[in-house]
This record gives sequence, C-alpha cells and structure tokens, in this order.
Amino acid sequence: MLTTNPFDDDKLREECGIFGISGSEGAAALVALGLHALQHRGQEAAGITSFDGCEFHTHRAMGHVAGNFDRDDIIQALRGNVACGHVRYSTTGETALRNVQPLYADLASGGFAISHNGNISNAMRLRRDLVQRGSIFQSTSDTETIIHLVATSNYRTFVDKFIDALKRVEGAYSLIVMTPEGMIACRDPLGIRPLVMGKLDGAVIFASETVALDVVGAEFVRSIEPGELVIVRGTEISSHRPFAPVNPRPCIFEYVYFSRPDSISEDRSVYTVRKAIGAQLAIESPVDADLIIPVPDSGTPAAIGYAQQSGIPFELGIIRSHYVGRTFIQPGDKVRHLGVKLKHNANRALIKGKRIVLIDDSIVRGTTSLKIVQMMREAGAAEVHMRIASPPTRHSCFYGVDTPERAKLLASSKNVAEMNAYIQADSLAFVSIDGLYKALGEPQRADIRPSHCDACFTGDYPTTLTDQDEIAAVDQFALLAERVI
Amino acid sequence: MLTTNPFDDDKLREECGIFGISGSEGAAALVALGLHALQHRGQEAAGITSFDGCEFHTHRAMGHVAGNFDRDDIIQALRGNVACGHVRYSTTGETALRNVQPLYADLASGGFAISHNGNISNAMRLRRDLVQRGSIFQSTSDTETIIHLVATSNYRTFVDKFIDALKRVEGAYSLIVMTPEGMIACRDPLGIRPLVMGKLDGAVIFASETVALDVVGAEFVRSIEPGELVIVRGTEISSHRPFAPVNPRPCIFEYVYFSRPDSISEDRSVYTVRKAIGAQLAIESPVDADLIIPVPDSGTPAAIGYAQQSGIPFELGIIRSHYVGRTFIQPGDKVRHLGVKLKHNANRALIKGKRIVLIDDSIVRGTTSLKIVQMMREAGAAEVHMRIASPPTRHSCFYGVDTPERAKLLASSKNVAEMNAYIQADSLAFVSIDGLYKALGEPQRADIRPSHCDACFTGDYPTTLTDQDEIAAVDQFALLAERVI
Amino acid sequence: MLTTNPFDDDKLREECGIFGISGSEGAAALVALGLHALQHRGQEAAGITSFDGCEFHTHRAMGHVAGNFDRDDIIQALRGNVACGHVRYSTTGETALRNVQPLYADLASGGFAISHNGNISNAMRLRRDLVQRGSIFQSTSDTETIIHLVATSNYRTFVDKFIDALKRVEGAYSLIVMTPEGMIACRDPLGIRPLVMGKLDGAVIFASETVALDVVGAEFVRSIEPGELVIVRGTEISSHRPFAPVNPRPCIFEYVYFSRPDSISEDRSVYTVRKAIGAQLAIESPVDADLIIPVPDSGTPAAIGYAQQSGIPFELGIIRSHYVGRTFIQPGDKVRHLGVKLKHNANRALIKGKRIVLIDDSIVRGTTSLKIVQMMREAGAAEVHMRIASPPTRHSCFYGVDTPERAKLLASSKNVAEMNAYIQADSLAFVSIDGLYKALGEPQRADIRPSHCDACFTGDYPTTLTDQDEIAAVDQFALLAERVI
Amino acid sequence: MLTTNPFDDDKLREECGIFGISGSEGAAALVALGLHALQHRGQEAAGITSFDGCEFHTHRAMGHVAGNFDRDDIIQALRGNVACGHVRYSTTGETALRNVQPLYADLASGGFAISHNGNISNAMRLRRDLVQRGSIFQSTSDTETIIHLVATSNYRTFVDKFIDALKRVEGAYSLIVMTPEGMIACRDPLGIRPLVMGKLDGAVIFASETVALDVVGAEFVRSIEPGELVIVRGTEISSHRPFAPVNPRPCIFEYVYFSRPDSISEDRSVYTVRKAIGAQLAIESPVDADLIIPVPDSGTPAAIGYAQQSGIPFELGIIRSHYVGRTFIQPGDKVRHLGVKLKHNANRALIKGKRIVLIDDSIVRGTTSLKIVQMMREAGAAEVHMRIASPPTRHSCFYGVDTPERAKLLASSKNVAEMNAYIQADSLAFVSIDGLYKALGEPQRADIRPSHCDACFTGDYPTTLTDQDEIAAVDQFALLAERVI
Repeated sequence: MLTTNPFDDDKLREECGIFGISGSEGAAALVALGLHALQHRGQEAAGITSFDGCEFHTHRAMGHVAGNFDRDDIIQALRGNVACGHVRYSTTGETALRNVQPLYADLASGGFAISHNGNISNAMRLRRDLVQRGSIFQSTSDTETIIHLVATSNYRTFVDKFIDALKRVEGAYSLIVMTPEGMIACRDPLGIRPLVMGKLDGAVIFASETVALDVVGAEFVRSIEPGELVIVRGTEISSHRPFAPVNPRPCIFEYVYFSRPDSISEDRSVYTVRKAIGAQLAIESPVDADLIIPVPDSGTPAAIGYAQQSGIPFELGIIRSHYVGRTFIQPGDKVRHLGVKLKHNANRALIKGKRIVLIDDSIVRGTTSLKIVQMMREAGAAEVHMRIASPPTRHSCFYGVDTPERAKLLASSKNVAEMNAYIQADSLAFVSIDGLYKALGEPQRADIRPSHCDACFTGDYPTTLTDQDEIAAVDQFALLAERVI
Repeated sequence: MLTTNPFDDDKLREECGIFGISGSEGAAALVALGLHALQHRGQEAAGITSFDGCEFHTHRAMGHVAGNFDRDDIIQALRGNVACGHVRYSTTGETALRNVQPLYADLASGGFAISHNGNISNAMRLRRDLVQRGSIFQSTSDTETIIHLVATSNYRTFVDKFIDALKRVEGAYSLIVMTPEGMIACRDPLGIRPLVMGKLDGAVIFASETVALDVVGAEFVRSIEPGELVIVRGTEISSHRPFAPVNPRPCIFEYVYFSRPDSISEDRSVYTVRKAIGAQLAIESPVDADLIIPVPDSGTPAAIGYAQQSGIPFELGIIRSHYVGRTFIQPGDKVRHLGVKLKHNANRALIKGKRIVLIDDSIVRGTTSLKIVQMMREAGAAEVHMRIASPPTRHSCFYGVDTPERAKLLASSKNVAEMNAYIQADSLAFVSIDGLYKALGEPQRADIRPSHCDACFTGDYPTTLTDQDEIAAVDQFALLAERVI
Repeated sequence: MLTTNPFDDDKLREECGIFGISGSEGAAALVALGLHALQHRGQEAAGITSFDGCEFHTHRAMGHVAGNFDRDDIIQALRGNVACGHVRYSTTGETALRNVQPLYADLASGGFAISHNGNISNAMRLRRDLVQRGSIFQSTSDTETIIHLVATSNYRTFVDKFIDALKRVEGAYSLIVMTPEGMIACRDPLGIRPLVMGKLDGAVIFASETVALDVVGAEFVRSIEPGELVIVRGTEISSHRPFAPVNPRPCIFEYVYFSRPDSISEDRSVYTVRKAIGAQLAIESPVDADLIIPVPDSGTPAAIGYAQQSGIPFELGIIRSHYVGRTFIQPGDKVRHLGVKLKHNANRALIKGKRIVLIDDSIVRGTTSLKIVQMMREAGAAEVHMRIASPPTRHSCFYGVDTPERAKLLASSKNVAEMNAYIQADSLAFVSIDGLYKALGEPQRADIRPSHCDACFTGDYPTTLTDQDEIAAVDQFALLAERVI
Repeated sequence: MLTTNPFDDDKLREECGIFGISGSEGAAALVALGLHALQHRGQEAAGITSFDGCEFHTHRAMGHVAGNFDRDDIIQALRGNVACGHVRYSTTGETALRNVQPLYADLASGGFAISHNGNISNAMRLRRDLVQRGSIFQSTSDTETIIHLVATSNYRTFVDKFIDALKRVEGAYSLIVMTPEGMIACRDPLGIRPLVMGKLDGAVIFASETVALDVVGAEFVRSIEPGELVIVRGTEISSHRPFAPVNPRPCIFEYVYFSRPDSISEDRSVYTVRKAIGAQLAIESPVDADLIIPVPDSGTPAAIGYAQQSGIPFELGIIRSHYVGRTFIQPGDKVRHLGVKLKHNANRALIKGKRIVLIDDSIVRGTTSLKIVQMMREAGAAEVHMRIASPPTRHSCFYGVDTPERAKLLASSKNVAEMNAYIQADSLAFVSIDGLYKALGEPQRADIRPSHCDACFTGDYPTTLTDQDEIAAVDQFALLAERVI
C-alpha cells in the first residue's frame, strides 16, 4: 500500500544517528533525549545500552524513540552512568530486531557494545572470511563484522584489538563503543560521517549532531577529528590517532539535507549555509516572479535565502499537515490517487494567478516534484518555476546513506532540460557544484583534493568499494538464510 | 509526567471536527481522509459510522485517525454509501470510549447516528429531566441529550422530532446526523461553530473546514448557514430554516488559531486574515529590531505579515522537531526541566546578539511564552520583544472549546504590563480587538451586534448559559457513577 | 476454522454463572475467585461491578476470568465492600462487550447493576414497547429489558419498581442486583436456574453453585428459594416473596452436565447423583464387556457408577490433553481432519482387542460420539458400546441454555436405533426418564407436576414462550442495527 | 505472587519436547500439531524452523503452541517440506527469546538449525574455551555450545563436523538437526532422553513421544537407539553409530511422570506401567480403607492399579478445575491463602467420614501433599493415607529436568517417617526402587548395570558432571552480561 509520505520517499536518507554519554547518573535518560533530537537521522528503530559497572542492559525496539524510550520502566531498567544509543533508518525484513543497534557481544575480555553510523564497504568480504573461520553471525549488519574482527584479533588489549579491527575495515564509520573499561568514540580517517563531543557537568558526550547536545543542555566542545579515537575511562579522556593521516572528506550532503538546520557542522551553522545556498541559487538562476514558496519543510531556509537575495516575497503556498506520519495507509483503492494531499495542501487563495518559484533542497526520483508542480497548477498558479538548492543527485552513496539504485535517480539519465520536461515546470535550475562550495565559504570545488565527499553529485568516491566491485555481491548477504517471523 | 508538548498545552483547543458524505461508494474511506485533514480539531479519539442501506456500522477508537482508520479491514467493514465521522479532543476518564462519536441509538423509527461539534450549554438540566422520566444515559456526553430528546419527542416524523429536540437545546452545535432515510447537516441559529458543504461527483459532503474537501478532491460549494438544516435523501437535497432568525455570531478564534491556514472560512482565506492581523500588529505595535521570528508553527503567517509590513527580515529562529508528538514522556526526574527543548530548539547561530521580535497567535497561561523568551535569551538574543496576533484571552469558552478555568488565563487577572513582567520580555503587545476586526475587513468591532462571537476576548456571550448558572452544576454530571475500568 | 473443541461443541451449554458478596473488604477479589470456580458456566466473557459507598466500578472483558480479573490493578480499581460478577457463554458479534454483564444504568434513584442467569422469554415484546415509548437500548441483551422496566416503573421505591419489573417478565432468572442501598438476590417463581446463599465471616454471598462458596472458604447456608427475594442492607438480611406461589421446577440438566460434580444442588451431591445415574444405566442397559471407559471428563462419574454396578473394570481408554483450550485453530487445510485427536487420544495399548463400554453424559448433535466410536475402532477395540447418562435430548431450551436449533439435535428426528446407526456403535442406550428421576431418589417422573424442568427431554415447558410464539421473532432483535467493529 | 499451580510446582519438570518431519508438504503445520501433543514437556516457549529448499524460516514465541502456532499466517510463512520444532519449559530472564529453540546459525557450509532435549553437562567449560578462541555466543543456552563446536570443527563435511562436536560434549541429548542437505536425529550414547521415529505417507518423523505421532496420524516405527544417528536426505534414510557402545540408561522418570500415559516408551505402555506401579504399591503398602482417591491427574493410573489390586473402590474425591492454567494470579493479599482450592476442590459429600488412600506419582517439596492432606481432613475424612508411585526423590537431575536445589527436596534430608510427620498424613509409603523395576518387568534393580537412569532416586549418575564439579560454576554463566529488556 502507498503511504502518505511520497515526498519523503523522494529524499536521500541518512541511515543512523548515535549518542553516548559517560559519567552521568541516569545516563540512559539522557541518551533517550539525545536520540530523540537525532530522530530525523533514523526513524525506524532505536536502541540503548547502558553499563552499571557490572552488567550491560539493552533495550531495542522498532519505531520512534518516543513511545519506546520514554517509558519509566524501560529507562530505569537501563541502569548505570555510561550509556550509548542508536537510531536507525532502514531495518528491513524479518530479521529486523537483530540488526537494531547497539550490537552487543560477550568477548573473552568482557562485554562489548557498539553503535555505528556509516557503512563498511568491504563488510561482505570480511564476513565470508570470518564465517569460514568459524564465526557465527547473528545479524545481517555490516557492523557485526567489526565485533568478530575484535573477537578474533590476536592483539592482547581490547584497545589494540579494536584498532586492529578498524584497520581491516574500509568505508565510513563514526562509532561509539562501550566496554567494562570505558567508552570509545572514533571517526574513520576521512571523517565521512559526523561526530561531535560535548560536556555536561562532569560527563562526556558524543553525538552525531550538536542539536543532541542542545536538547540535554550540554556544551558543544568540538568535533571528533577524522581518524581520531577518543577514549574515556572514568574521568580521564585521551585522544589517539592510530591511522596514517589523509585529507578529510566529510559528507557535504549533511549541509544540504541530513543535518538539522539548528546544528553546527564543522563550525558552520547549517541554517546559514542553507540560506547561503538559496542566495547563491538566486544569483545563478533568477526568475521574474511574484512569490517564493518553500517545499516544506526542508526547502524553507534556502527559500528564505532566495527571497532575501531576490527581493521577492516569501510566502507559505504549501501547507504541511502535522499529523502525517509514516504510518497512514490510504484505505481503499478508490482513494489511492489522492495520496499526496494528505501530507501537503495548496494554499489556493494565495497562489491563484501568481507566478511562483518553488524552492526544494534536492531532487531524487522526481516523482514528488512532479506532484507538487501539478498541485500548484491545479491551485491556479500562472507560472511554476522550480529551483533546487543542490546540484543534480547522480550517484549512489555507499557510506551509510539510503539512496535508490542509480537507475531510479532522475539525474542519472537525464540532463536538466529533460528533468524539467519530466516534472512539467516552467523552468528548473540547480545550484552549481562550485556554487555549493561557495556557500561553504570556498571559492570553488577543489577538483584535486575537494574538502568534502560529494560523490552523490560527482561520482568521486574517496574510498575503494570492495563489495560493490565483486560480482553478485548482493547474493553473499543471503548467507543469513533464516527468516525470523 | 510532563509531556513534550508544553507549548500546545498553552493553546485553546477546538474540541471537535466532523465530516459526512452521502452518495459515494466506499464512503467510509473518504470520511477517514476527511477526518485526517481535520485532525488538528481533535486528536484524542475518532469514530466513523456508515450505513449500507440496511445496517449501521461503527468503529470508534482512542488516538489518531492514522493508525486506526487507515486499516483496510476496518474501512471495508464500514460498508455503505453514506457515512459520517468525528474527531475529538477531550475524552477523559474511564468512560472514554462511550463518549467517542458518532453516538448511535435505535429509536422506534430506526437507527440514528450523530456527530456533534460544539457544546450544549443546558445539557445537564435536560439530562436530569430525562433521567427522571426513565431515560437511561450511556455516556457523559452532552450530545446524548439530543438523542434522548428525539427518542421521547411526541412529534410523528423523524425530522419533526429532531427539530423539536434542537429547539429545546441551547448553545453551539454543528451536527451531521444519519438515519435510514438520509443525512441531515445543521448549524445552530448563531452559527457559532463552522460547517461547510462540498460536492464530489454525485456525492454531497459536509465538513468542519474546507481543507477536508481539498483532501478528497471535492469542490467547495458554500457554508451551511447559521440556523440552516440541509437534508439529503438519496440525490435530493433540501434546505430548511426551522428557527427564528437571529444575527449570526461565528467564532472569531477560528481565524486566530483553530482553522488551518489553507481553509476558507466564510469566504475569507484564513492565511490571508492571519497575515493581515500580523500586519495590523506591526502598525499598532512596531519595534526597532533585527529579526522577526515566528513561534512555530501557529505564529508563522502573522510573522510573515508583520515582517512584510515592517520590512524587518523574517527568519527561523526557533526550530521545531517533527518527531514530537503528544506522547513523549520525559524519562527520569533529572531531565524533566529540559522539556521545552524537546519540541523547539533555538537557532543559536542566528539569534546571538540580535534584537528579535517573536510573533505568536495567542497567550493562554503564559507558561510557554516565558520559556520561549528564556530560550531566546539563553541563545544570546540582545532584546526579545513579544507580539501577539490576538487580543488578550480573558474568558472561558462554553461553546465546544477547551479553555482552562478562568483563573489560569494569564489575561484574566493581569494587564499587559503585568503580563510582560511575567513572561520577562523586553516588551509585549497584543493586537487590539478593533484591529482584529480590521483584519477581517470591518472598520472596527460593532459593539451592539458584533459580527462574530468573541466572548473569549470580551466576555460577551451570545447565548444564555443555563448549566453554568446552576450552583454546583458540575456535580450533576457525577450522576453517571459507574467507572468502567 | 475448526477449533479443537468439537467435543464441547457437542454439549448443551449453561450460559451464565453469577456471584455476589456484600460486607467484605476487597469484595471484588472474592468475586473474581468465585467466578473462576463458576467458569464452566460461561467461558467467553466476564465482568465485575463493585460499589464503594459512593461510586460503582466496573470491568468487563472478553475471555476467561483468569488473565482478566487476576490482575492487581484491575482488582484494586474495583473498590468497595459490595461487588457482584458474571461469567457468560455466548456473546457473539460486534456488539459483544456491551452485552457482557453486570449491566449498569444510572436511574433517577441512583446507580443500578444487574447480573442475570437465565433468559427472559418475552424480552423482545417488552423491548419493542419500551423503544416505542422512548427508551434507548445499548445492548441486545434480554437483561437490559429489566433495567428499562425499572427505570420507567411508576412505583416509588427502588424495591417496588424492581418487583413491578419482575412481574412483567416471564422466563427464567436468577438475579444479583446492586444499588447504593444494598444487594438483592432473587430467583424466578419456578426456580429454573440455581442460586445459593453462603456466609463468610460477616459477609453474605450469593452464587450459582456451592463450589464458588468452597473456593472462597465460605459456608453454604441454603438455596435461595424459587420466587424468593433476599435483600441485604448492610448487616441486615430480609427475605421477601412477592410472587404468587407455584410448584418449583429447577433444571434437571444441572445434575446431568451443567453443575460441577463437587457442587451440592438442592441438598444432593451432584457427583453422587451422576454415579447413581450410571448405576441405573448399568441396571437398565447392561453389556457383556471387558472395560468401562468414560468419555472424559464429563462422563467419568457415571462411568464409575456403571463400573461399580456392573463389576467391569473402569479404565482410562481415552486420554485428554490438558493443553487444549478453546483457541487452538488447526493450521492448514491438510490437517483439518486430524482435529479430534488434538483433544483426545486413544489409549491404544489398553483398548486393542477389548470389548468396551463408553459412558457419556449426553448426546446433542452426535458428531462427537461418532468420532469417538471411530477412534476406538481405529485403536483396535473389538466391540464398542455407547451408554448415555441422560435421556435423548429432543427439545431446545429457552431458559438460558445454549442449545442448537431443534433440527440439529440428533434425537429430535431419530429414534435410538437410528441414532446408533449414525454413531456406528455396536449398541447404544440412554437412561430412561424415569431412571433419571430414580437417581434423584424419586420413584419415577411425576407426569402431572414433575419436580424439575426436563423440557429438553420431554418438551414440557413450564412457562409461556411469548417471543418464540411470535412470527419472525428473531428479526425483531435486528432492531439494534449498529454493528460496532 | 502465588500462582494457582502449587501442585505443579511440586513436580519435577521435563524441560523439552522436540518434533521434526522431513518430506511432507506443509511440514510446519504437522510440527505445530506434534508440539501441541508434547506441550506437557515444555509449556513456556515454543519454536518451529522450516526449510523450503532455499531459505530457513523460523518463528519463536513465549507461551503455548496454541495461540502462537495455530495462526494461518505464521504457519504459511513457515514454508517447506522439512521442519522441526521445540517446546521448552524454563526460559527465564530477559534474554528469554534468544534461548527459545530451534537455535539457528549460518555456517560456512550453510544454515544449521537445532532442537535439543536434554542438558550438556560440560557446557560451561566448553563455552569458556570457545569464547577465548573468538566465538561469540548469542544465548545462555547449553545447546549453542554444539553449534560453535560444529562451526569451528576442522573436519570437512557437515556430518563429520557434527559428530566431532558431539564427541566433545557430555550429558544428555536427543537432537533434531536441519541443514540444507537434510535432517539428522540422534540420541546420546546412554539414550537418557527419549526419541522415536515414525512415518506418515512418504514422510519421516522424529518426536520425543509416540503421542506426537498419534496426533498427526503417523505410524510408530521404532525408538531411535542410544548412540544412534539417523540421517534423512530426501527419501534416503541411513543409520549411523559413531560412538563407542555403552549400556543404555534411559530415564526411568519418563514412566513415573514425564511421558503421557498414552505414549509407548521402549515398547511399554506408559499407562500400563503406571497401573503396575500402583498395583505393586498396593502389594508393598496395603491399607484398610474405604476409598482410593487419585491426586488428579498424574496419580490416576496408579490409583486405578492400586484400587484393582486392593479391591477398594476408586472414587473422585478431588475435583480439578479445567480452567486453571498457569496464569491465574490470586488478586489481593486477603485471598492468597485460598490458593490451593482454585485448582482442586474436595468432593466433600463423598469423603466425609471415610478412610481414604490418596495416590500421587511423586513427592518433590512436599508442600502440595501437605495441602491436599489438610483439604481432605477439612472435608471430614476419617483417615488419610498417602501412597506414592515412585521412590523418594532425593537427588537433582542434570540431564534436562528441572529439579529444585537438593536442599528443597523433602526426601533429601528426611526419612519416610519424618516426611509423613511433615505432610501430616495418617501413613505414608513409597514404592520401593526394586518394586519400580518390577513394574517394568524386571526382577529387581540391577545394581551394577541398572537398565535405566534413576539418579534422582539413587544418586547413581551415569555420566561425569564437569560443570557441577567446578567451583562457583554458576557464576561462569554470568559471562553473558547483557540483559535485554
């Protein structure tokens, strides 16, 4: 059945958010709040593991943080001063709950819990080797690979085993790890996925975004640096750099869509960057129009930037229902085609007879853009121009972002004119890749060593992609042939 | 426990939304969609009754329309071409489900289902008389009074019995009624609560707001007029006016907050009225400031109006989480005080050092305004001015709106200066009552026969309030002494 | 789908059990225990109402007492020293929960709760009259008729209204009623359904059977007499006889099957009566056989009586699974025919090559008897003789017992030889009607004024059957045309 | 809280039942039926795994087979012609569902599912070694040890790996194993736990007891022999004996209590053996009494044997409620002491003034025996003699039976006279250990090489008990320090 969220289906999706705290009474309650603030990074499942000095306690659940981790009984059972948690986007299929993180294992050295944001791009090859050796996997998660690499490492201390394991994986990972000895946070050498550090009274916090610090009233200290490993043992904090240094490549799409506008990403306000992209777009692709209308809610900051730059009034031409979640199924065949209106409705009285500019953050499949343009025309708009606050999304991401297969990306096979024909607007324009870097304060994209990972726009992947390169790689994952119903 | 919705707790609440359709296959599916679009009018329970030419089918449930009425099994069981439904705000206590509408009864003339938006202000007196006579009530709902008045009326036809009953009730009611013969929609003589009519192919639709017509793709025909009774029998539609004519007094607060901005209320765009109130506010109470910031989301249209009138930039200084529903309970005592940030977060980088104007639609208790002002100061705002797009809310509503008891209304005991001291802003101003009518296109409030019910601002109630006038009236409702657990 | 209980489907079913207590702290907990002991009288729904001196508290639930009324939160919410409850067999359809008793109403005189065992045989006619007059029914239960008769009675005191109501109903009723003033227990003038009185410390108890007194440790005082009304007001107990005296006709089937063997019914041990019926059967219909085998569990006491009288060994030839409830659905088409073995299994090693006598309490449809005979033959029995500890069941019961429509009663259209041909036994015999009365200690059935109601065997109904006599009477009940889903 | 099952708490409990079928369409439906017939061997959880030639499908659930595995959606999702299942008694704590069998793992050779009845007595030592080597356990189950031993075996084929693993475990195991190649059933060299083979059309079935064959209409072929491994690959069946031969020692308690009376255990009818024990008891310990009364239901066959041998009438002096499951919690403090009567009730009219002999199958803690004796005295019995159809239970079982710690076994510290003083009977006697073997057709217990494991009576354990012998062994299991909530 169709859901009422066709719009969201037409976005890339960040797959995970993570949060950890060490040194605070009632740690799990703070993790719950932090995860709640990171809910936009993963809406389908959540988990928290705490450590009380003796035992680890874990609760995992499908669904939102609210409704699962706001229950007193759950939170009180998650005893201890150290805890970490995870929200997750895509957990499909019957083995769902086993894949919900934090993952946990009993090693010879004691308990080990891990929360992972990113994607290991050689996970399948590593898994095959480990199974051959006698390791038994309980999930289909790439993250479990790290656990088995630690369990079977020949190094002596836990930290050495852990570094040994990380050196064998490739891809993107921001990790928060708990052992009886302490908490470790780390980020892959390229720093593809974000991870920040904060403090709250005596406690240390790690989180995917600064908004999660805000929600618990913590102070933002700094970002974990690419390739850095921060170890917290009681009140002692130490920083380690076990990897050979490389130029960092953090994900540029965090600015475009993933991060919340009120987050600070690498010292930049995400809201300000989005407005700057909108202003750049107004400079690059101006329109003679009556109204600037954001596609709510992700297009709003860029629309404000575009409106301020262009001097055309910003207006709410599309009203978004607050009551549409992911779950509303349209009942009955007859009403299926009405879908899009459940989520958005044209502000008819405003739009009628007007030349409008719609501002959206990105186009993925294009199906939503088409529907929105149609909705505006049905409401009587005289002209409908579409402006997109990112370059065309042409390539899949293999670093922890859910992208449709390439063939379904509208920009993978169409140029801008063809895309415009598809969405039936009067005109369509995207910000340029150099314009995007300008909004970040750089003169243009550095083609040799660009400062960010922008592979979804350029196809310039910063790591090898071992599993992708193997033939029939997908079938390998079918190894876990048990479907739990 | 505290919920994460302290902001919403600080609003008046419309208590109900209703929707009915006659003459369409799969009527219940369309009612579900319509109720979904009216969800903001009542979020705690919903019900749908259909009639298949032979039997009535009803499903009632606590909670949102989505999750309850988007299930194929439910919708398919609600067979028939005629159906009506109801969303409801406050259904408290153990007898909850019995109070969820549509209410139903078997009369000697056959089945009778009723959906009611409003409040009968002499319900308790009528109930006492009916029980004395041998009537047995199954709910604590004022609406059930109408049913028993119909059941015991001495008139012969159903329509005559129904009119007889309505003539004995006082207060506010927009009703959609189903009997085996057809559907009746009506509005009390003052037209306090809204009700509109639409058409979709051959079917007739009645709904609280036009957005519910939009969602099903129906055409807006006109408002039901105050005191009008529209009867639909098959394809035949007739209009009746059984009451003595009086000057209508529709609720003015529908423009301020209750209705969705994309609704048309009595030929006016709600969005346009809200912008006009904001502009009027900028004229009446200007501020020398850097940014205009809406309190999301209800303050946004007025903030756009204020910004356009004043020329000060409109910016998103408060970010609202999409994932905060009514249900998130903050776990643990330690984090209770963090509550407000779960729902809203300051856009710190934007606000720091700026003189800001916050625009909200109304102040009820004032607790939220205080928290918002504090949040802005903590984020570094240089000055915080509060402007409110309605006059001070000083009086309770007895016409189907959930208002706190008068003593809890901040404006009931404080003047504007005292209110400003309470919320700790640098300045506070409300739009004037005449300014409000100006935004509606009138020169000022007509003090003799004002065009709207504005009792919450003025105390000028357009009906008698029988139950309120009785001593210890509340205790009368204790008659239903069974607590179902 | 088939259930695993084909055997039980082939029994008559008592439809209700009731239990009330006045004057004990934690009254509801004792009612829960009492209802649990009466669970065999009604397995599909249960309810308890308590009165705390101020308010009535009710909980009703589909399903067994265990699992619903053994939860501390439920029991503690059912506050008060006075409480009554009900277990119910057949509550079908969507309006189910509304029919679960105790029923409750707010009368002008205050709250009124009622638990009823029996059936009002003129309920439909009374209902029609009441609806005509303006009464609104909320259930399809015949019991609700009594409530409306009380509500609309012109007498002044509650007791007078109640007696007025009872004088207008015909049929079978044992009632426990609660009002703010006290508890009333009564039995219809013929005493068709049972009701006993007990005491526990200072408290008074009423129950359908003495086993419910045993379970709470109460002392059996006496049966409520036919036509008697016992009123308990605090510690004061009074007995009233408002009806003209008639010869009592308690249900004889309570001895055959309904009552538990450990109950005392009218000063007779049910177990002893059942053994006596078995012995009488051995005298009337002896067999030359090797083993006496009860059809578990209802045939066991009669089988012991038959074995002791005949001198043939009693053996467990059929083993009953303890884990078969009403709910096991046989999955998949393939295994549907295996059904009967889920509940009973032949003790193959015992039966092989033996001439066996099966003892069962009654035959209703005969489908189970056929399956049991086949199971015995498949297990290798040399001869299979069936002996039934009641006369052939030829007529429907209209006094609160669930009987199939007459055409489905095997004995309604077949004589014993034809029945034997149907079940494929080597021989079949029933105890005679006079033999049944002999087991009760009488010389034979008194044909003029028999001491019991035996209408299911003889068709001799002791009351008029108003509703049955009306044409298309069943359709009248379709008045409640709302199907709640 | 107390449950209503104090009687059952006073029994030893078989911990598991297993069932597998290869070569039948809709295999899972037949497994569900088979497990249902084995429900008495494990009532707290159940699971089924099927294989459809490509994937394995598993469903595991807490609770009974009925209610979980009788749902069409579940059964239909368990696709394939090969399936096995498990019922389980004790799965405690938060990690419960992970311990429910069949356990499953992806090995390098493919999927592997295992159902285990028994207990590995060196599981903790093996686990410690495996974790040291890098294996990660996901449950606390001893059975998982076998999986990791297979996964890390150096042998080449799956069957060789499996045999290698079995040679490293000690203790009791009847196993049903599924791999993509086929199904394997095996029994430990001593054959401590039972396992039988049957056939149904072309399919092969393995089950803990023959009743599970009866329920699906299958034919009993033979028992799997101790130390035998039966491999089914499609229609090909082969038998293997990889272990050095030893004298078998099947569990004698299967005859006393665990197996259903209608099962055939090693060519003996369990019912017939139980009657023979009762007869032997009558010979060894006669009483001059009026009635023989079984403690229902497990004492019934022995009571019939005792009654037939002694000539004293067999009567139902204790009535057992059919509606008492494991779940009824007695509400409220006041009624806790009433507990025992919820399950059993004295047949007062029968017992009063009589000298009675109670027959039970065993005494574990003795608490129930004490309550039963008291109940009989309260009901007026003149004398109460207790006869037990097994020797005193003095020792714990480590082979898959739930026994209380030794100190709680009444017989561990008391002789028969002291036990009689505790239960307050007029006399108490147990069948002798030689008498027990006589009932099995042997002249006496062979003290050198007894034919059965009778360690619970004699302390003569047939295997080493590695884990038991380690100090603080229990703490080792605390390794799995994650508590999933």
